[in-house]
Amino acid sequence: MRNLLLTLCFDGAAYHGWQIQPNALTVQEVLQNALYKVLQETPSLKGCSRTDAGVHARMFCVSFQTQRQIPCGRLLCAVNHFLPPDVAVTACREVPEAFHARFSCKGKQYVYQIWNAPVRSPFLRNRALHYWYPLDEAKLNAAAGYYVGAHDFTSFCTQDGRKMGSFVRTVTQAQVQREGDLVTFTVAADGFLYNMVRILTGTLLYVAQGKLAPQEIPKIFAARKRSFAGPTAPPQGLYLNRVDYEEAQLHA
Amino acid sequence: MRNLLLTLCFDGAAYHGWQIQPNALTVQEVLQNALYKVLQETPSLKGCSRTDAGVHARMFCVSFQTQRQIPCGRLLCAVNHFLPPDVAVTACREVPEAFHARFSCKGKQYVYQIWNAPVRSPFLRNRALHYWYPLDEAKLNAAAGYYVGAHDFTSFCTQDGRKMGSFVRTVTQAQVQREGDLVTFTVAADGFLYNMVRILTGTLLYVAQGKLAPQEIPKIFAARKRSFAGPTAPPQGLYLNRVDYEEAQLHA
Repeated sequence: MRNLLLTLCFDGAAYHGWQIQPNALTVQEVLQNALYKVLQETPSLKGCSRTDAGVHARMFCVSFQTQRQIPCGRLLCAVNHFLPPDVAVTACREVPEAFHARFSCKGKQYVYQIWNAPVRSPFLRNRALHYWYPLDEAKLNAAAGYYVGAHDFTSFCTQDGRKMGSFVRTVTQAQVQREGDLVTFTVAADGFLYNMVRILTGTLLYVAQGKLAPQEIPKIFAARKRSFAGPTAPPQGLYLNRVDYEEAQLHA
Repeated sequence: MRNLLLTLCFDGAAYHGWQIQPNALTVQEVLQNALYKVLQETPSLKGCSRTDAGVHARMFCVSFQTQRQIPCGRLLCAVNHFLPPDVAVTACREVPEAFHARFSCKGKQYVYQIWNAPVRSPFLRNRALHYWYPLDEAKLNAAAGYYVGAHDFTSFCTQDGRKMGSFVRTVTQAQVQREGDLVTFTVAADGFLYNMVRILTGTLLYVAQGKLAPQEIPKIFAARKRSFAGPTAPPQGLYLNRVDYEEAQLHA
Protein backbone atom coordinates (compact mmCIF):
# COMPACT_ATOMS: atom_id res chain seq x y z
CA MET A 1 0.00 0.00 0.00
CA ARG A 2 1.23 3.48 -0.82
CA ASN A 3 0.53 6.18 1.76
CA LEU A 4 0.09 9.59 0.13
CA LEU A 5 0.11 13.07 1.64
CA LEU A 6 -1.85 15.78 -0.18
CA THR A 7 -1.44 19.46 0.69
CA LEU A 8 -4.57 21.52 -0.02
CA CYS A 9 -5.47 25.17 -0.15
CA PHE A 10 -9.14 26.18 -0.01
CA ASP A 11 -11.49 29.11 0.27
CA GLY A 12 -13.93 27.75 2.85
CA ALA A 13 -16.80 30.20 2.20
CA ALA A 14 -18.90 27.64 0.33
CA TYR A 15 -18.15 24.69 2.62
CA HIS A 16 -19.37 23.38 5.94
CA GLY A 17 -15.82 22.72 7.02
CA TRP A 18 -13.58 19.76 6.23
CA GLN A 19 -15.39 16.78 7.66
CA ILE A 20 -17.94 14.97 5.52
CA GLN A 21 -21.56 15.18 6.70
CA PRO A 22 -24.87 14.06 5.22
CA ASN A 23 -26.69 17.35 4.67
CA ALA A 24 -24.07 19.91 3.73
CA LEU A 25 -21.22 20.26 1.26
CA THR A 26 -17.76 19.80 2.76
CA VAL A 27 -14.19 19.95 1.48
CA GLN A 28 -13.74 16.26 2.25
CA GLU A 29 -16.70 15.41 0.03
CA VAL A 30 -15.42 17.34 -3.01
CA LEU A 31 -11.92 15.90 -2.54
CA GLN A 32 -13.32 12.38 -2.19
CA ASN A 33 -15.35 12.83 -5.39
CA ALA A 34 -12.34 14.17 -7.30
CA LEU A 35 -10.14 11.31 -6.04
CA TYR A 36 -12.78 8.78 -7.06
CA LYS A 37 -12.72 10.07 -10.62
CA VAL A 38 -8.95 9.68 -10.74
CA LEU A 39 -8.47 6.46 -8.74
CA GLN A 40 -11.80 4.70 -9.28
CA GLU A 41 -11.83 3.96 -5.58
CA THR A 42 -12.81 5.89 -2.45
CA PRO A 43 -9.86 5.94 -0.08
CA SER A 44 -10.38 6.72 3.60
CA LEU A 45 -9.14 10.32 3.97
CA LYS A 46 -7.36 11.47 7.14
CA GLY A 47 -7.49 15.27 7.49
CA CYS A 48 -5.03 17.15 9.70
CA SER A 49 -7.93 18.72 11.63
CA ARG A 50 -11.59 19.54 11.47
CA THR A 51 -12.35 23.07 10.35
CA ASP A 52 -15.56 25.01 11.00
CA ALA A 53 -17.97 26.06 8.26
CA GLY A 54 -16.62 29.13 6.45
CA VAL A 55 -13.03 28.71 7.69
CA HIS A 56 -10.24 28.82 5.09
CA ALA A 57 -6.96 26.98 4.67
CA ARG A 58 -3.79 28.24 3.05
CA MET A 59 -2.39 24.82 3.96
CA PHE A 60 -4.36 21.73 4.91
CA CYS A 61 -2.95 18.20 4.92
CA VAL A 62 -4.69 14.96 4.06
CA SER A 63 -3.23 11.46 4.02
CA PHE A 64 -4.69 8.29 2.53
CA GLN A 65 -3.67 4.85 1.39
CA THR A 66 -4.05 3.48 -2.11
CA GLN A 67 -2.77 0.62 -4.23
CA ARG A 68 -2.98 2.66 -7.43
CA GLN A 69 0.42 3.38 -8.95
CA ILE A 70 -0.30 6.78 -10.54
CA PRO A 71 2.77 9.05 -10.01
CA CYS A 72 2.36 11.94 -7.53
CA GLY A 73 2.76 14.72 -10.13
CA ARG A 74 0.04 13.25 -12.33
CA LEU A 75 -2.28 12.62 -9.41
CA LEU A 76 -1.95 16.29 -8.40
CA CYS A 77 -2.87 17.55 -11.88
CA ALA A 78 -5.71 15.07 -12.32
CA VAL A 79 -7.28 15.77 -8.93
CA ASN A 80 -7.06 19.53 -9.50
CA HIS A 81 -8.87 19.03 -12.78
CA PHE A 82 -11.84 17.50 -10.95
CA LEU A 83 -11.85 19.84 -7.94
CA PRO A 84 -13.94 23.02 -7.91
CA PRO A 85 -11.97 26.29 -8.34
CA ASP A 86 -12.12 27.16 -4.64
CA VAL A 87 -10.11 24.07 -3.66
CA ALA A 88 -6.67 23.11 -4.98
CA VAL A 89 -4.06 20.45 -4.27
CA THR A 90 -0.71 22.24 -4.08
CA ALA A 91 1.52 19.23 -3.35
CA CYS A 92 1.44 15.44 -3.34
CA ARG A 93 4.11 13.12 -1.93
CA GLU A 94 4.59 9.57 -0.78
CA VAL A 95 5.07 9.18 2.99
CA PRO A 96 5.92 6.22 5.26
CA GLU A 97 3.10 3.82 6.06
CA ALA A 98 2.88 4.98 9.70
CA PHE A 99 2.25 8.61 8.70
CA HIS A 100 -1.19 10.01 9.58
CA ALA A 101 -2.10 13.62 8.65
CA ARG A 102 -3.66 14.21 12.06
CA PHE A 103 -1.78 12.04 14.54
CA SER A 104 1.66 12.76 13.06
CA CYS A 105 1.06 16.52 13.21
CA LYS A 106 3.33 18.25 15.73
CA GLY A 107 1.90 21.74 15.43
CA LYS A 108 -0.18 24.21 13.44
CA GLN A 109 -0.31 27.90 12.76
CA TYR A 110 -3.56 29.83 12.31
CA VAL A 111 -4.12 33.40 11.14
CA TYR A 112 -7.19 35.48 11.96
CA GLN A 113 -7.78 38.49 9.66
CA ILE A 114 -9.68 41.60 10.71
CA TRP A 115 -10.55 44.37 8.24
CA ASN A 116 -10.38 47.37 10.56
CA ALA A 117 -11.85 50.28 8.60
CA PRO A 118 -15.14 52.21 8.65
CA VAL A 119 -16.26 50.76 5.30
CA ARG A 120 -16.25 47.03 4.42
CA SER A 121 -13.87 45.70 1.76
CA PRO A 122 -15.63 44.02 -1.21
CA PHE A 123 -12.48 41.95 -1.74
CA LEU A 124 -12.51 40.59 1.83
CA ARG A 125 -16.16 39.63 2.17
CA ASN A 126 -16.15 36.08 3.58
CA ARG A 127 -12.36 36.44 3.98
CA ALA A 128 -12.01 38.65 7.06
CA LEU A 129 -14.01 39.94 10.00
CA HIS A 130 -15.10 43.52 9.35
CA TYR A 131 -14.55 45.47 12.58
CA TRP A 132 -15.01 49.23 12.23
CA TYR A 133 -14.06 50.45 15.73
CA PRO A 134 -10.33 51.38 15.55
CA LEU A 135 -8.13 48.65 17.02
CA ASP A 136 -4.98 49.43 18.99
CA GLU A 137 -2.75 46.62 17.75
CA ALA A 138 -0.09 47.31 20.43
CA LYS A 139 -2.66 46.70 23.17
CA LEU A 140 -3.95 43.55 21.47
CA ASN A 141 -0.40 42.34 21.03
CA ALA A 142 0.24 42.83 24.75
CA ALA A 143 -2.83 40.70 25.50
CA ALA A 144 -1.81 38.06 22.94
CA GLY A 145 1.56 37.76 24.70
CA TYR A 146 -0.22 36.15 27.67
CA TYR A 147 -1.39 33.31 25.41
CA VAL A 148 2.18 32.12 24.82
CA GLY A 149 3.34 29.13 26.85
CA ALA A 150 1.80 25.91 28.18
CA HIS A 151 -1.64 26.64 29.63
CA ASP A 152 -4.90 24.91 30.40
CA PHE A 153 -7.16 26.30 27.64
CA THR A 154 -10.48 25.05 29.08
CA SER A 155 -11.81 28.64 29.12
CA PHE A 156 -10.94 29.00 25.44
CA CYS A 157 -12.75 25.93 24.20
CA THR A 158 -16.31 25.07 23.18
CA GLN A 159 -17.30 21.78 24.81
CA ASP A 160 -19.71 19.89 22.60
CA GLY A 161 -20.12 16.74 24.64
CA ARG A 162 -17.34 14.88 22.88
CA LYS A 163 -14.95 13.19 25.29
CA MET A 164 -11.73 15.18 25.39
CA GLY A 165 -8.35 14.48 26.91
CA SER A 166 -6.11 17.15 28.37
CA PHE A 167 -6.97 20.83 27.84
CA VAL A 168 -3.32 21.81 28.11
CA ARG A 169 -1.77 23.15 24.91
CA THR A 170 1.53 24.91 24.30
CA VAL A 171 1.25 28.13 22.32
CA THR A 172 4.58 29.00 20.70
CA GLN A 173 3.55 32.20 18.90
CA ALA A 174 0.76 34.75 19.43
CA GLN A 175 1.17 38.07 17.66
CA VAL A 176 -1.02 40.90 16.44
CA GLN A 177 0.20 42.97 13.50
CA ARG A 178 -1.27 45.73 11.37
CA GLU A 179 -0.70 46.32 7.66
CA GLY A 180 -2.80 49.32 6.63
CA ASP A 181 -6.40 48.53 7.52
CA LEU A 182 -5.77 44.81 7.91
CA VAL A 183 -5.08 43.56 11.44
CA THR A 184 -3.78 40.01 11.68
CA PHE A 185 -3.60 37.72 14.70
CA THR A 186 -1.15 34.85 14.19
CA VAL A 187 -1.09 31.94 16.63
CA ALA A 188 0.91 28.71 16.58
CA ALA A 189 0.65 25.79 18.99
CA ASP A 190 1.29 22.06 19.33
CA GLY A 191 -2.47 21.57 19.06
CA PHE A 192 -5.75 23.45 19.25
CA LEU A 193 -9.03 22.76 21.04
CA TYR A 194 -12.46 23.14 19.42
CA ASN A 195 -13.05 26.83 18.51
CA MET A 196 -9.87 27.81 20.36
CA VAL A 197 -8.50 30.36 17.85
CA ARG A 198 -11.89 31.99 17.41
CA ILE A 199 -12.29 32.36 21.19
CA LEU A 200 -8.71 33.65 21.58
CA THR A 201 -9.61 36.24 18.91
CA GLY A 202 -12.95 37.13 20.51
CA THR A 203 -11.10 37.68 23.80
CA LEU A 204 -8.65 40.05 22.09
CA LEU A 205 -11.68 41.99 20.82
CA TYR A 206 -12.95 42.15 24.42
CA VAL A 207 -9.62 43.73 25.32
CA ALA A 208 -10.06 46.18 22.42
CA GLN A 209 -13.49 47.11 23.77
CA GLY A 210 -12.04 47.80 27.24
CA LYS A 211 -14.05 44.96 28.77
CA LEU A 212 -10.82 43.28 29.84
CA ALA A 213 -7.25 44.44 30.52
CA PRO A 214 -4.40 42.46 28.91
CA GLN A 215 -3.07 41.49 32.36
CA GLU A 216 -6.41 39.82 33.20
CA ILE A 217 -5.81 37.02 30.68
CA PRO A 218 -4.13 34.79 33.32
CA LYS A 219 -7.33 34.96 35.40
CA ILE A 220 -9.26 33.51 32.46
CA PHE A 221 -6.84 30.57 32.28
CA ALA A 222 -7.18 30.03 36.04
CA ALA A 223 -11.00 30.09 35.97
CA ARG A 224 -11.23 27.15 33.54
CA LYS A 225 -14.70 28.35 32.55
CA ARG A 226 -15.77 29.27 29.01
CA SER A 227 -17.84 32.19 30.32
CA PHE A 228 -14.72 34.06 31.49
CA ALA A 229 -13.34 34.45 27.95
CA GLY A 230 -14.65 36.65 25.12
CA PRO A 231 -17.11 35.54 22.45
CA THR A 232 -16.32 33.15 19.61
CA ALA A 233 -15.22 35.35 16.68
CA PRO A 234 -16.98 34.56 13.38
CA PRO A 235 -15.42 31.93 11.10
CA GLN A 236 -14.76 33.95 7.94
CA GLY A 237 -11.59 35.61 9.31
CA LEU A 238 -9.90 32.31 10.18
CA TYR A 239 -7.20 30.60 8.09
CA LEU A 240 -5.31 27.42 8.84
CA ASN A 241 -1.96 28.76 7.67
CA ARG A 242 0.65 26.04 8.28
CA VAL A 243 0.74 22.41 9.38
CA ASP A 244 4.00 21.10 10.81
CA TYR A 245 5.37 17.56 10.76
CA GLU A 246 8.68 16.13 11.92
CA GLU A 247 10.92 15.71 8.89
CA ALA A 248 11.64 12.17 10.11
CA GLN A 249 7.95 11.22 9.83
CA LEU A 250 7.82 12.33 6.22
CA HIS A 251 10.67 10.05 5.14
CA ALA A 252 10.79 6.28 5.10
CA MET B 1 -28.22 71.56 -7.05
CA ARG B 2 -25.51 69.71 -5.13
CA ASN B 3 -22.96 67.81 -7.20
CA LEU B 4 -21.66 64.75 -5.32
CA LEU B 5 -18.63 62.56 -5.97
CA LEU B 6 -18.79 58.96 -4.75
CA THR B 7 -15.70 56.77 -4.62
CA LEU B 8 -16.46 53.07 -5.02
CA CYS B 9 -14.61 49.81 -4.61
CA PHE B 10 -16.03 46.66 -6.20
CA ASP B 11 -15.32 43.03 -6.94
CA GLY B 12 -16.51 42.85 -10.54
CA ALA B 13 -16.85 39.06 -10.79
CA ALA B 14 -20.64 39.11 -10.61
CA TYR B 15 -21.17 42.17 -12.83
CA HIS B 16 -21.26 42.93 -16.53
CA GLY B 17 -19.13 46.00 -16.01
CA TRP B 18 -20.15 49.45 -14.85
CA GLN B 19 -22.57 50.65 -17.50
CA ILE B 20 -26.25 49.82 -17.11
CA GLN B 21 -27.73 47.47 -19.72
CA PRO B 22 -31.08 45.76 -20.14
CA ASN B 23 -30.20 42.09 -19.85
CA ALA B 24 -27.36 41.84 -17.36
CA LEU B 25 -26.54 43.02 -13.86
CA THR B 26 -24.15 45.97 -13.71
CA VAL B 27 -22.53 48.01 -10.95
CA GLN B 28 -24.39 51.11 -12.13
CA GLU B 29 -27.71 49.30 -11.67
CA VAL B 30 -27.02 48.20 -8.09
CA LEU B 31 -25.72 51.67 -7.20
CA GLN B 32 -28.74 53.31 -8.79
CA ASN B 33 -31.07 51.03 -6.82
CA ALA B 34 -29.28 51.73 -3.55
CA LEU B 35 -29.32 55.48 -4.21
CA TYR B 36 -33.03 55.32 -4.98
CA LYS B 37 -33.72 53.76 -1.60
CA VAL B 38 -31.83 56.56 0.12
CA LEU B 39 -32.79 59.57 -2.02
CA GLN B 40 -36.21 58.49 -3.38
CA GLU B 41 -35.05 59.70 -6.77
CA THR B 42 -32.93 58.25 -9.58
CA PRO B 43 -30.09 60.64 -10.31
CA SER B 44 -28.20 60.44 -13.59
CA LEU B 45 -24.90 58.77 -12.68
CA LYS B 46 -21.64 59.73 -14.43
CA GLY B 47 -19.03 57.00 -14.08
CA CYS B 48 -15.31 57.73 -14.54
CA SER B 49 -15.09 55.03 -17.23
CA ARG B 50 -16.77 51.95 -18.57
CA THR B 51 -15.37 48.70 -17.28
CA ASP B 52 -15.66 45.28 -18.93
CA ALA B 53 -17.59 42.39 -17.42
CA GLY B 54 -15.56 40.76 -14.63
CA VAL B 55 -13.16 43.70 -14.20
CA HIS B 56 -12.62 44.99 -10.65
CA ALA B 57 -12.10 48.43 -9.16
CA ARG B 58 -10.12 49.35 -6.07
CA MET B 59 -11.18 52.91 -6.89
CA PHE B 60 -13.99 54.00 -9.20
CA CYS B 61 -15.53 57.46 -9.24
CA VAL B 62 -19.12 58.45 -9.88
CA SER B 63 -20.63 61.93 -9.85
CA PHE B 64 -24.30 62.93 -9.81
CA GLN B 65 -26.51 65.87 -9.02
CA THR B 66 -29.21 65.93 -6.37
CA GLN B 67 -31.33 68.44 -4.49
CA ARG B 68 -31.52 66.23 -1.41
CA GLN B 69 -29.70 67.71 1.58
CA ILE B 70 -28.58 64.48 3.29
CA PRO B 71 -25.01 65.01 4.64
CA CYS B 72 -22.20 63.14 2.84
CA GLY B 73 -21.26 60.94 5.81
CA ARG B 74 -24.84 59.74 6.23
CA LEU B 75 -25.31 59.19 2.51
CA LEU B 76 -22.21 56.97 2.48
CA CYS B 77 -23.47 54.79 5.35
CA ALA B 78 -27.01 54.59 4.00
CA VAL B 79 -25.94 53.67 0.45
CA ASN B 80 -23.54 51.01 1.76
CA HIS B 81 -26.41 49.52 3.72
CA PHE B 82 -28.37 48.98 0.50
CA LEU B 83 -25.45 47.88 -1.70
CA PRO B 84 -24.54 44.19 -2.06
CA PRO B 85 -21.39 43.10 -0.17
CA ASP B 86 -19.22 43.08 -3.31
CA VAL B 87 -19.67 46.83 -3.85
CA ALA B 88 -18.88 49.58 -1.32
CA VAL B 89 -18.80 53.36 -1.28
CA THR B 90 -15.53 54.36 0.40
CA ALA B 91 -15.93 58.16 0.18
CA CYS B 92 -18.52 60.82 -0.58
CA ARG B 93 -17.85 64.54 -1.05
CA GLU B 94 -19.43 67.62 -2.52
CA VAL B 95 -17.72 68.94 -5.66
CA PRO B 96 -18.18 72.06 -7.82
CA GLU B 97 -21.10 72.04 -10.25
CA ALA B 98 -18.81 71.76 -13.29
CA PHE B 99 -17.19 68.54 -12.02
CA HIS B 100 -17.89 65.40 -14.07
CA ALA B 101 -16.43 62.04 -12.98
CA ARG B 102 -15.44 61.20 -16.54
CA PHE B 103 -14.65 64.49 -18.27
CA SER B 104 -12.79 66.00 -15.30
CA CYS B 105 -10.56 62.93 -14.99
CA LYS B 106 -6.94 63.70 -15.83
CA GLY B 107 -5.58 60.17 -15.56
CA LYS B 108 -6.03 56.63 -14.29
CA GLN B 109 -3.92 53.78 -13.06
CA TYR B 110 -4.75 50.13 -13.76
CA VAL B 111 -3.21 46.98 -12.30
CA TYR B 112 -3.26 43.57 -14.00
CA GLN B 113 -2.61 40.60 -11.69
CA ILE B 114 -1.18 37.28 -12.87
CA TRP B 115 -0.94 34.26 -10.58
CA ASN B 116 2.20 32.65 -11.95
CA ALA B 117 2.40 29.21 -10.35
CA PRO B 118 1.79 25.64 -11.51
CA VAL B 119 -1.35 25.28 -9.37
CA ARG B 120 -4.24 27.79 -9.30
CA SER B 121 -4.92 29.83 -6.17
CA PRO B 122 -8.41 29.28 -4.68
CA PHE B 123 -8.19 32.78 -3.19
CA LEU B 124 -7.52 34.42 -6.57
CA ARG B 125 -10.15 32.71 -8.70
CA ASN B 126 -11.90 35.54 -10.60
CA ARG B 127 -9.24 37.90 -9.18
CA ALA B 128 -6.16 37.15 -11.28
CA LEU B 129 -5.16 35.43 -14.50
CA HIS B 130 -3.70 32.00 -13.75
CA TYR B 131 -0.62 31.60 -15.95
CA TRP B 132 1.47 28.52 -15.13
CA TYR B 133 4.42 28.97 -17.54
CA PRO B 134 7.17 30.75 -15.54
CA LEU B 135 7.29 34.48 -16.36
CA ASP B 136 10.57 36.41 -16.49
CA GLU B 137 9.44 39.69 -14.93
CA ALA B 138 12.67 41.49 -15.95
CA LYS B 139 11.99 40.72 -19.60
CA LEU B 140 8.34 41.78 -19.32
CA ASN B 141 9.42 44.95 -17.56
CA ALA B 142 11.80 45.75 -20.43
CA ALA B 143 8.91 45.35 -22.88
CA ALA B 144 6.57 47.44 -20.69
CA GLY B 145 9.15 50.24 -20.76
CA TYR B 146 8.34 50.75 -24.46
CA TYR B 147 4.74 51.57 -23.55
CA VAL B 148 5.78 54.72 -21.65
CA GLY B 149 5.37 58.02 -23.48
CA ALA B 150 2.90 59.55 -25.94
CA HIS B 151 2.02 56.98 -28.62
CA ASP B 152 -0.72 56.18 -31.08
CA PHE B 153 -2.35 53.15 -29.44
CA THR B 154 -4.50 52.09 -32.41
CA SER B 155 -2.85 48.63 -32.38
CA PHE B 156 -3.75 48.25 -28.69
CA CYS B 157 -7.45 49.01 -29.02
CA THR B 158 -10.58 47.04 -29.89
CA GLN B 159 -12.64 49.05 -32.36
CA ASP B 160 -16.32 48.36 -31.87
CA GLY B 161 -17.76 50.74 -34.43
CA ARG B 162 -18.19 53.62 -31.99
CA LYS B 163 -16.82 56.87 -33.37
CA MET B 164 -13.55 57.63 -31.65
CA GLY B 165 -11.32 60.68 -31.58
CA SER B 166 -7.55 60.56 -31.35
CA PHE B 167 -5.84 57.24 -30.56
CA VAL B 168 -2.89 59.04 -28.96
CA ARG B 169 -2.52 58.51 -25.23
CA THR B 170 0.33 59.35 -22.87
CA VAL B 171 1.44 56.48 -20.66
CA THR B 172 3.26 57.78 -17.58
CA GLN B 173 3.98 54.46 -15.85
CA ALA B 174 4.29 50.87 -17.09
CA GLN B 175 5.97 48.42 -14.74
CA VAL B 176 6.04 44.69 -14.11
CA GLN B 177 6.81 43.45 -10.60
CA ARG B 178 6.83 40.10 -8.87
CA GLU B 179 5.92 39.35 -5.28
CA GLY B 180 6.22 35.61 -4.74
CA ASP B 181 3.97 33.92 -7.29
CA LEU B 182 2.03 37.09 -8.05
CA VAL B 183 3.18 39.11 -11.07
CA THR B 184 1.66 42.58 -11.37
CA PHE B 185 1.59 44.91 -14.36
CA THR B 186 0.88 48.52 -13.35
CA VAL B 187 0.07 51.09 -16.02
CA ALA B 188 -0.96 54.75 -15.69
CA ALA B 189 -1.99 57.11 -18.47
CA ASP B 190 -3.96 60.27 -19.17
CA GLY B 191 -6.63 58.06 -20.73
CA PHE B 192 -7.21 54.54 -22.01
CA LEU B 193 -8.80 53.18 -25.18
CA TYR B 194 -11.29 50.30 -25.23
CA ASN B 195 -9.57 47.08 -23.99
CA MET B 196 -6.20 48.86 -23.99
CA VAL B 197 -4.81 47.49 -20.71
CA ARG B 198 -5.93 43.95 -21.54
CA ILE B 199 -4.20 44.13 -24.95
CA LEU B 200 -1.05 45.69 -23.43
CA THR B 201 -1.05 42.74 -21.01
CA GLY B 202 -1.69 40.16 -23.74
CA THR B 203 1.23 41.63 -25.69
CA LEU B 204 3.50 41.25 -22.64
CA LEU B 205 2.45 37.58 -22.52
CA TYR B 206 3.42 37.31 -26.21
CA VAL B 207 6.85 38.58 -25.20
CA ALA B 208 6.94 35.99 -22.39
CA GLN B 209 6.15 33.27 -24.95
CA GLY B 210 9.02 34.41 -27.18
CA LYS B 211 6.63 35.38 -29.99
CA LEU B 212 7.89 38.94 -29.79
CA ALA B 213 11.08 40.65 -28.54
CA PRO B 214 10.70 43.68 -26.23
CA GLN B 215 12.37 45.91 -28.82
CA GLU B 216 9.68 45.01 -31.37
CA ILE B 217 7.00 46.94 -29.44
CA PRO B 218 7.69 50.19 -31.41
CA LYS B 219 6.86 48.31 -34.64
CA ILE B 220 3.42 47.49 -33.21
CA PHE B 221 2.79 51.18 -32.54
CA ALA B 222 3.92 52.06 -36.07
CA ALA B 223 1.68 49.44 -37.70
CA ARG B 224 -1.54 50.93 -36.25
CA LYS B 225 -3.20 47.53 -36.72
CA ARG B 226 -4.82 45.50 -33.93
CA SER B 227 -3.49 42.27 -35.45
CA PHE B 228 0.13 43.26 -34.71
CA ALA B 229 -0.40 43.23 -30.93
CA GLY B 230 -0.94 40.24 -28.64
CA PRO B 231 -4.33 38.85 -27.62
CA THR B 232 -6.75 40.57 -25.24
CA ALA B 233 -5.94 39.19 -21.77
CA PRO B 234 -9.00 37.92 -19.83
CA PRO B 235 -10.87 40.42 -17.63
CA GLN B 236 -10.55 38.82 -14.20
CA GLY B 237 -6.95 40.03 -13.65
CA LEU B 238 -7.77 43.68 -14.27
CA TYR B 239 -8.28 46.31 -11.56
CA LEU B 240 -8.97 50.01 -11.96
CA ASN B 241 -6.61 51.08 -9.19
CA ARG B 242 -6.63 54.89 -9.06
CA VAL B 243 -8.52 57.77 -10.67
CA ASP B 244 -6.84 61.17 -10.71
CA TYR B 245 -8.44 64.64 -10.72
CA GLU B 246 -6.91 68.10 -10.51
CA GLU B 247 -7.23 69.31 -6.94
CA ALA B 248 -8.64 72.56 -8.35
CA GLN B 249 -11.57 70.72 -9.94
CA LEU B 250 -12.55 69.15 -6.64
CA HIS B 251 -12.86 72.48 -4.84
CA ALA B 252 -15.35 75.26 -5.47
